[in-house]
Amino acid sequence: MVTTQELDAALSTALETAGRGHRGANPLVGACILDDEGNLIATGYHLGAGHPHAEVDALRRLGKIDPAAARKLTMVVTLEPCNHTGRTGPCAAAIANAGIGSVYYAVSDNTAASGGAEYLRGRGIRTTQFEDDAAARALNHRWFLSKEQARPFITVKLAQSLDARINAPDGTSQWITSAESRNHAHGLRGRVDGILIGTNTAVIDNPRLTARTRDGQLHSMQPYRLVMGQRELPGNLALAEGEDWEQIATHDVHAVIDRANELGLGHLLIEGGATVASAFIEADLADELYCYQAPLLIGAGSSSVNLPTTTLSQAHRYRLDTASNESLARLGDDIMLHLEPLPSA
Amino acid sequence: MVTTQELDAALSTALETAGRGHRGANPLVGACILDDEGNLIATGYHLGAGHPHAEVDALRRLGKIDPAAARKLTMVVTLEPCNHTGRTGPCAAAIANAGIGSVYYAVSDNTAASGGAEYLRGRGIRTTQFEDDAAARALNHRWFLSKEQARPFITVKLAQSLDARINAPDGTSQWITSAESRNHAHGLRGRVDGILIGTNTAVIDNPRLTARTRDGQLHSMQPYRLVMGQRELPGNLALAEGEDWEQIATHDVHAVIDRANELGLGHLLIEGGATVASAFIEADLADELYCYQAPLLIGAGSSSVNLPTTTLSQAHRYRLDTASNESLARLGDDIMLHLEPLPSA
Repeated sequence: MVTTQELDAALSTALETAGRGHRGANPLVGACILDDEGNLIATGYHLGAGHPHAEVDALRRLGKIDPAAARKLTMVVTLEPCNHTGRTGPCAAAIANAGIGSVYYAVSDNTAASGGAEYLRGRGIRTTQFEDDAAARALNHRWFLSKEQARPFITVKLAQSLDARINAPDGTSQWITSAESRNHAHGLRGRVDGILIGTNTAVIDNPRLTARTRDGQLHSMQPYRLVMGQRELPGNLALAEGEDWEQIATHDVHAVIDRANELGLGHLLIEGGATVASAFIEADLADELYCYQAPLLIGAGSSSVNLPTTTLSQAHRYRLDTASNESLARLGDDIMLHLEPLPSA
Repeated sequence: MVTTQELDAALSTALETAGRGHRGANPLVGACILDDEGNLIATGYHLGAGHPHAEVDALRRLGKIDPAAARKLTMVVTLEPCNHTGRTGPCAAAIANAGIGSVYYAVSDNTAASGGAEYLRGRGIRTTQFEDDAAARALNHRWFLSKEQARPFITVKLAQSLDARINAPDGTSQWITSAESRNHAHGLRGRVDGILIGTNTAVIDNPRLTARTRDGQLHSMQPYRLVMGQRELPGNLALAEGEDWEQIATHDVHAVIDRANELGLGHLLIEGGATVASAFIEADLADELYCYQAPLLIGAGSSSVNLPTTTLSQAHRYRLDTASNESLARLGDDIMLHLEPLPSA
């Protein structure tokens, strides 16, 4: 018999375990499996898009178990198990097939993947929602918002000097940040469905926007490339060597989101420049920020963001994303901050 | 008999131990005491101005020992023991009085406190300089520079948003940084001999510039207050409530330094605003930076520094001061970076 205290402790563990994953098209989710004496016998988490969901990860770590033994086990998960076949199969079916006897979950799923609890109950599994889901909701507060707003989860990357400059007055900017920072940012590219830059960045920096490893190899997953803005682009852009790119001739962030939705991009990375990043920040569409800071003072040149702020109360406020796997890191000589917007009160 | 390897290991330990102190009017110094089998039996370090020097700290931690036993001991210290009575007595005399038999030191002292090695040899103590003092010299490279230039050690404090703004366009700036950051900065004030601000900051922010604890009590050590600039100051400035302040009617950082030297200020803290901080940074007079960053994007308003940079190669480059006791810290919701200029090649 598992006690209420043991269930609450398992939920706390599942929330912590969830943080080993990456935010993105899917939320952070953690799962625990308890035996009938309330002992923790397996944990699992969702690493990110294309990886097993937390429940399946926990079952895999549990290993082979016969149905009679499984019936005595309890799974505790931070989000209602999905009832949906995406890149992975539905978790509700995996739990039922494993023969787990009892499932507790925190936040109910209102997305296209909903219905897992009902499915489990229909298979005779005792399925209960925790009364207090505040911590589990807070863990993914921006992911839930992106789903409510029917749009991709949006990551904004800023790479700047200590005084938030992205170039010197004469435009020189390569390389402000360290090789380690750039490598980390390529890891970000390898986790998203799409990358967005502005037309000026496309023309001036002319990036390929591919996700590459430190030794220059392509990551297995490559993002779709979007260029936002009305400026006419030259025919010889580096990013145009691939087929999977397009220009969205707009200055309206919502038009970009509509197109990203049409393309089925669940996770969009805004790579800059300052105008494009600022437009998404000002519209409160930045669900997370990765801010790479190089330890130098340029003292002049363009700023990483420009917003129509008049007074301090209009500032956009963030917090270190301490629930996820890294919130503050040294990358070579640089510092990386991973931030999320403060939840609305 | 202590081996060369044991001596080198002791120097490494002394260098690490030195980092527990604070940079300032005195350099970071660490000391180790070894017995005649090369075992480490005590360490010491210099915490900061007004505290015992590393050698005296190590002797104190060693405790009472009779002269015959002391004769078998070896002290390893990162800087030549001083031969100078300042706020504390000369270390050379303390070592001799304790009866230590042998002293190894890394960097020789060319300042007013020099002559310790000669003093020790004169008292019959085997006194040897390490052949390689590069690491010990690097530990205090900016302190040595400040001594060569016959000027105070200079700390520049920057307190800014993530986008390096110090206010919004309408001038609102209180409070960008957290209570923990402000408390930390008061600790800095309590360690320096003098604080400098510009006339605009004096008039607009009207700070007291006292060093206070979290509960508003005054630190035991209060800095001398300097206001730099030619603007006429009103008679009712908050900092003018004490006697120990003055205006230096100049825009020349070297005139400030001359006056600080006349006043005998060994450690000067530049508190801002941006114009004053930038003048010291541009003149390569910032021996260390404390950069407090609040996790918000203001997006407009004044920048923390403004320099006459044209191209990126003119940027001022720093590194996290990982040799000292804190280089990267969370202070409430804020991040603090403690940086030092890259050593010149």
